[in-house]
Amino acid sequence: MRIKLTVSYDGTDFSGWQRQTDKTTVQQTIEDAIFSLTGEKVKVVGSGRTDAGVHALGQVAHFDTKSTIPPSNFAKALNTILPLSVKVLKSEEVAKSFDASRTAKRKTYCYSLYKSDVILPLKERYSVMIKKDTDVKIMKDVAKLFVGEHDFKSFCASGSSVKTTVRTVYSVEIKEEGEDVKVYITGNGFLYNMVRIIVGTLVECGQKRIDEKAIKTMLNEKRRNIGGRTLSAKGLCLVSVEY
Amino acid sequence: MRIKLTVSYDGTDFSGWQRQTDKTTVQQTIEDAIFSLTGEKVKVVGSGRTDAGVHALGQVAHFDTKSTIPPSNFAKALNTILPLSVKVLKSEEVAKSFDASRTAKRKTYCYSLYKSDVILPLKERYSVMIKKDTDVKIMKDVAKLFVGEHDFKSFCASGSSVKTTVRTVYSVEIKEEGEDVKVYITGNGFLYNMVRIIVGTLVECGQKRIDEKAIKTMLNEKRRNIGGRTLSAKGLCLVSVEY
Repeated sequence: MRIKLTVSYDGTDFSGWQRQTDKTTVQQTIEDAIFSLTGEKVKVVGSGRTDAGVHALGQVAHFDTKSTIPPSNFAKALNTILPLSVKVLKSEEVAKSFDASRTAKRKTYCYSLYKSDVILPLKERYSVMIKKDTDVKIMKDVAKLFVGEHDFKSFCASGSSVKTTVRTVYSVEIKEEGEDVKVYITGNGFLYNMVRIIVGTLVECGQKRIDEKAIKTMLNEKRRNIGGRTLSAKGLCLVSVEY
Repeated sequence: MRIKLTVSYDGTDFSGWQRQTDKTTVQQTIEDAIFSLTGEKVKVVGSGRTDAGVHALGQVAHFDTKSTIPPSNFAKALNTILPLSVKVLKSEEVAKSFDASRTAKRKTYCYSLYKSDVILPLKERYSVMIKKDTDVKIMKDVAKLFVGEHDFKSFCASGSSVKTTVRTVYSVEIKEEGEDVKVYITGNGFLYNMVRIIVGTLVECGQKRIDEKAIKTMLNEKRRNIGGRTLSAKGLCLVSVEY
């Protein structure tokens, strides 16, 4: 049977999702836990890779098993083996047609920022400091430009090889609460570093270093070297995946 | 001159506030940073010790210096030397009569809990899981019993030697937001582990393992072995100190 897992992790100490030789990754940690539990060497397929340092509240993955463990019990059983930094929130049986990677329809990421003139040690693990005078209203206005189907080539790390750099962003929502500024982006898929570059560009707008016109140029000219800076992985979190 | 520092730290990797031989503490980290900056071997006096693993948003400390650095510049200058886990939010000159420890009038702590049936990796660093069915309304009701002047002997770690175990708690406020439950306690001073034991007792009430009557007994009988369990240090944060 095929099992769907909803997984949360603190990505700080992981070299990303995807299995690598000699590095600790989330995928390998879960595969090893399944091996401890069932004795099976399975491949756990995630909705997509997350980079080193990126967190997840609701990453989705699937694997096939011949085990007789009731599907909903996998979560609890795996959690007794998994470290504190990775936990399975839910396990359920799905049809063989379900593929965590290929059938994913929408993903939501959240990028966490905090406005301050001093580094705040209790914010540093999961968010990135921006200047206190950053204009979040400007960021909200400019964010609308990214919504819709666009060629996001200017917002993709150079060197990545994908068939097309066209993606649809369904929404960019910015929530400000006290010193916290959270940017939620939902789309049908994201290019390598795309969220981190979009948010980096929004921050530069909020700091009045670039303007709306520059964003339009970036979206039209499709060259990576003209997009904003790539923000640190630690502020990024994969919130949910919809199928 | 005497300098007052307002300090925030992530206590996870520190053996508490107070200088110890062979262990990394917050006090020693700040004293070392001052030595690097001014060449002076000063004693940094905190408002009180925080235990290993306890965090601070606004710990207050003072030290005396002969340096000619303008008082408000100490924060920025020390922050260039201090690690990401400890930062000075503010530095200012105060009168010699100011003593971070002796003249402290009120302290506010926050204990962070989260309601869940599964460990949430992104909550684990700064908060403690409680069962999803914990009744926070009961916790709020019972919290009122702690407000006022009481002998908190039943809520003090055994083995601590203090002149009196009488303290005044000004308020206990519990804020619930989504899965997060935060307990704010303000008082004129706190005994060793007092906040962690009070919150542990509140949680046991919310889980209907003990009731209001039991709390009254604890407050009246004054024996440590009858108080609730001591919760983990990682959920505790010193929010502010007033003078």
